[in-house]
Amino acid sequence: MDFRPILYVMGMLLCVLATGMAIPMLVDLYYDHQDWQIFLFSILICTFFGGTLVLSNSGSTSQALNIRQAFVLTAMGWLVMSIFGALPLWHSAMDLSFTDAVFESVSAVTTTGSTVMVGLDNAPPGILLWRSILQAFGGVGFIVMALTILPFLKVGGMQLFQTESSDKSDKALPRIRQNAMAIGYVYLFLVTWCALTYWFCGMSGFDAFNHAMTSISTAGLSTHDTSFAYFKNPSLEWAATFFMIMGALPFVLFIRMGKGEWKSVFRNSQVRAFLKFLTFTIILMTFWLTIEHDRPIIDALRAVSFNVVSVVTTTGYMSEDYSLWGPFSVAAFFVLTFVGGCTGSTGGGTKIMRFQIMWAVFKRQMFRLVHPHGVFPITYEGCSVNEEVLFSVIVYMVSLFLSLALLSIALSITGVDFITSITGAATSLMNVGPGLGPIIGPAGNYAPLPDAAKWLLSFGMLLGRLELVTLLILFSPYLWRR
Amino acid sequence: MDFRPILYVMGMLLCVLATGMAIPMLVDLYYDHQDWQIFLFSILICTFFGGTLVLSNSGSTSQALNIRQAFVLTAMGWLVMSIFGALPLWHSAMDLSFTDAVFESVSAVTTTGSTVMVGLDNAPPGILLWRSILQAFGGVGFIVMALTILPFLKVGGMQLFQTESSDKSDKALPRIRQNAMAIGYVYLFLVTWCALTYWFCGMSGFDAFNHAMTSISTAGLSTHDTSFAYFKNPSLEWAATFFMIMGALPFVLFIRMGKGEWKSVFRNSQVRAFLKFLTFTIILMTFWLTIEHDRPIIDALRAVSFNVVSVVTTTGYMSEDYSLWGPFSVAAFFVLTFVGGCTGSTGGGTKIMRFQIMWAVFKRQMFRLVHPHGVFPITYEGCSVNEEVLFSVIVYMVSLFLSLALLSIALSITGVDFITSITGAATSLMNVGPGLGPIIGPAGNYAPLPDAAKWLLSFGMLLGRLELVTLLILFSPYLWRR
Repeated sequence: MDFRPILYVMGMLLCVLATGMAIPMLVDLYYDHQDWQIFLFSILICTFFGGTLVLSNSGSTSQALNIRQAFVLTAMGWLVMSIFGALPLWHSAMDLSFTDAVFESVSAVTTTGSTVMVGLDNAPPGILLWRSILQAFGGVGFIVMALTILPFLKVGGMQLFQTESSDKSDKALPRIRQNAMAIGYVYLFLVTWCALTYWFCGMSGFDAFNHAMTSISTAGLSTHDTSFAYFKNPSLEWAATFFMIMGALPFVLFIRMGKGEWKSVFRNSQVRAFLKFLTFTIILMTFWLTIEHDRPIIDALRAVSFNVVSVVTTTGYMSEDYSLWGPFSVAAFFVLTFVGGCTGSTGGGTKIMRFQIMWAVFKRQMFRLVHPHGVFPITYEGCSVNEEVLFSVIVYMVSLFLSLALLSIALSITGVDFITSITGAATSLMNVGPGLGPIIGPAGNYAPLPDAAKWLLSFGMLLGRLELVTLLILFSPYLWRR
Repeated sequence: MDFRPILYVMGMLLCVLATGMAIPMLVDLYYDHQDWQIFLFSILICTFFGGTLVLSNSGSTSQALNIRQAFVLTAMGWLVMSIFGALPLWHSAMDLSFTDAVFESVSAVTTTGSTVMVGLDNAPPGILLWRSILQAFGGVGFIVMALTILPFLKVGGMQLFQTESSDKSDKALPRIRQNAMAIGYVYLFLVTWCALTYWFCGMSGFDAFNHAMTSISTAGLSTHDTSFAYFKNPSLEWAATFFMIMGALPFVLFIRMGKGEWKSVFRNSQVRAFLKFLTFTIILMTFWLTIEHDRPIIDALRAVSFNVVSVVTTTGYMSEDYSLWGPFSVAAFFVLTFVGGCTGSTGGGTKIMRFQIMWAVFKRQMFRLVHPHGVFPITYEGCSVNEEVLFSVIVYMVSLFLSLALLSIALSITGVDFITSITGAATSLMNVGPGLGPIIGPAGNYAPLPDAAKWLLSFGMLLGRLELVTLLILFSPYLWRR
């Protein structure tokens, strides 16, 4: 395998990362915090490695990437971002261990939002900003990957909307650049809109900017230990609920809306299913909270909407400890961990489209059992779904339950209790953030876990963000042997 | 739909059930226990309903059953057995509520082995025997269903070995009778062998006969509150380990062995995978128990073998409280709950064959991702696996996770805690028996659960025993509309 084009792209990524680090450096300089030196040092390291890789491998991208290279490139991209993104965290004033720095960086880049950092309220501004910027990078990166690389790799289901199909991605790199631009504009617009709204609702400018980045990327890291519970501000919670939903909608639709095609959004079957599911779940749980816990209905509606949307969109903010709402909500939130946003959004999880396709497969089987010779075509958004897409969805599910079982067992071997193992495995693979139980529950923190568990969860987060198969295939002999 | 042939079969089943009830009646008469009247009363009810149904619908079986009828018949068969089987339990000296009697009966018939009865050691012999007989009926019934009705319904994967395929089951009933005879002989042989071994190892004749029936049917009800821990007898535990494995092997193989084809057993890929998996798991966990809990290796090996085999084969006996072995074993036993025995055995669970097919699908997808135009046929035991079988396996998995999620949430609404909900849902759907946590864990009992939870779990056990889809299809409009 020719690694040169892969190394070239890694070099480019490191240069982008270095540019991103300049922002927290300037902020720390402005606030006169010593951490600016750490950022400068990290910039120098990234630029050195990045520049070397770009220069020594330039010219290699004239050839098209083949499928094997594309798989390795995708996985390595996320790994490189995570490891180099950890540099400023490692040596910052927060005094994190190497394990903690990598965990926090992986959690940020994969837009999971689990944290091992305690004392965020008094943390230096640069480091808080850097976590949010990493999440924004992760969010944009994921959409670009989902729209451009994954269809070419036939992973993630978006190939359904791809008309061309060729082994060689002659247009892969130019298409990536073009789409990345459009997504970048949409992203910038949403973050600005969100930040202004948060600011208007009463956040400080700094908090508003940070939370805007982590809302639109459905990522969930906060600048306060108690997440949104810190603000105690109903209008803010409603605003965040709205923007988390925006982040979990297919970004292609925003581009279409920009072109004036408003109706296509509400006609989109995935969006409709997503909103219907949210509405149903929120009404049911509000009802429960009002009856069982005697809370005023408006208050219950807000608390339920915020936290359900936060978990379903895989953001992971919390406005109160919903694990205290009783057994029903605990079980429900665990199941909600697996849902996820729409395909082509920043949201993680299984994603609505996969559930729609699985439901169609289920219905077809029920039909076929009664009518063995009947024909029951599966269509989605007007396209007929071929067996290849069906199997890509199915193999995702198989991989998910395999990964879930193995990761839970591996976590339990590190000595972590049953609820923490199983919900930790689920929440990391689905890139949600909070699990259940006293340690990693909505009011908890990942800091007390043993180092081995943190590495396992970091692996889980990367596995989830890479739609499982894109990372699992690196362990397959098929990829490496001719 | 013409219900007459269905009602005819139900009538036959009730007559079989009445015959079965004669045994505990005679035993209670011998021991001079008043419960013999309850059995007599139950026999009269079953005979009355059974006789009426048979007589009023005789002659209707001259026509072949169609697929819709076969689905309704299968589901109703298990329901009728469960409800009428509960009669003696309901009015026995054990003084069970109607809910408890039905729960216990469903648990017995589906060979799950969960119990709500406390004080088994002093229970009247008739009632203990009746639970074991119900489990034996359930075990035989399940194999007969798996070998004869399910392939015709294209459920459960055994259709892979079926050469004929027709919409009308012209040969369904004669085939059922013929196969049922062969299975009955094998079953009788195994139970006798098992009972003699247990007796030889030190059980009383009564205990040996009861446990033989519940071992071979991988069912797990015991005549003692503390299950096999009561006996404190290493050789008994080894014997039970062996016979639980026997119950989880494909019964067709025993018939072949009876014809002298011994080699076919060890060549069978499902049997090999099953035994390999057990060996691997037992070695790993013995190692863990020896290192972490400082137990002598032979003692650890026995405890691990017995309890792992009990859970994997979905029997559900226990020789000690394995939930005290630490977080690793708790998580591992939860995952083991989903494995199950071989297809065509009395074992429940997902079953080895489905895992083998899913693994083949996973491998094919990995191959296809790298070689989009490559051909990768999926074969099993020399038969090529067509898409229809693949989708039947896949839809089982989809149904399993849907049922698991919904059942857990429903259980939690009854006020049951998270671990009890999630492991209760899993253990009932997989027909294993013990869950985790202080209530339904290996040392626990289902009695303290609220009635609503018991009904939900009963539904879960029936759903699991009917391979999910066979029951779910009754809720599908396709079955009922023309």
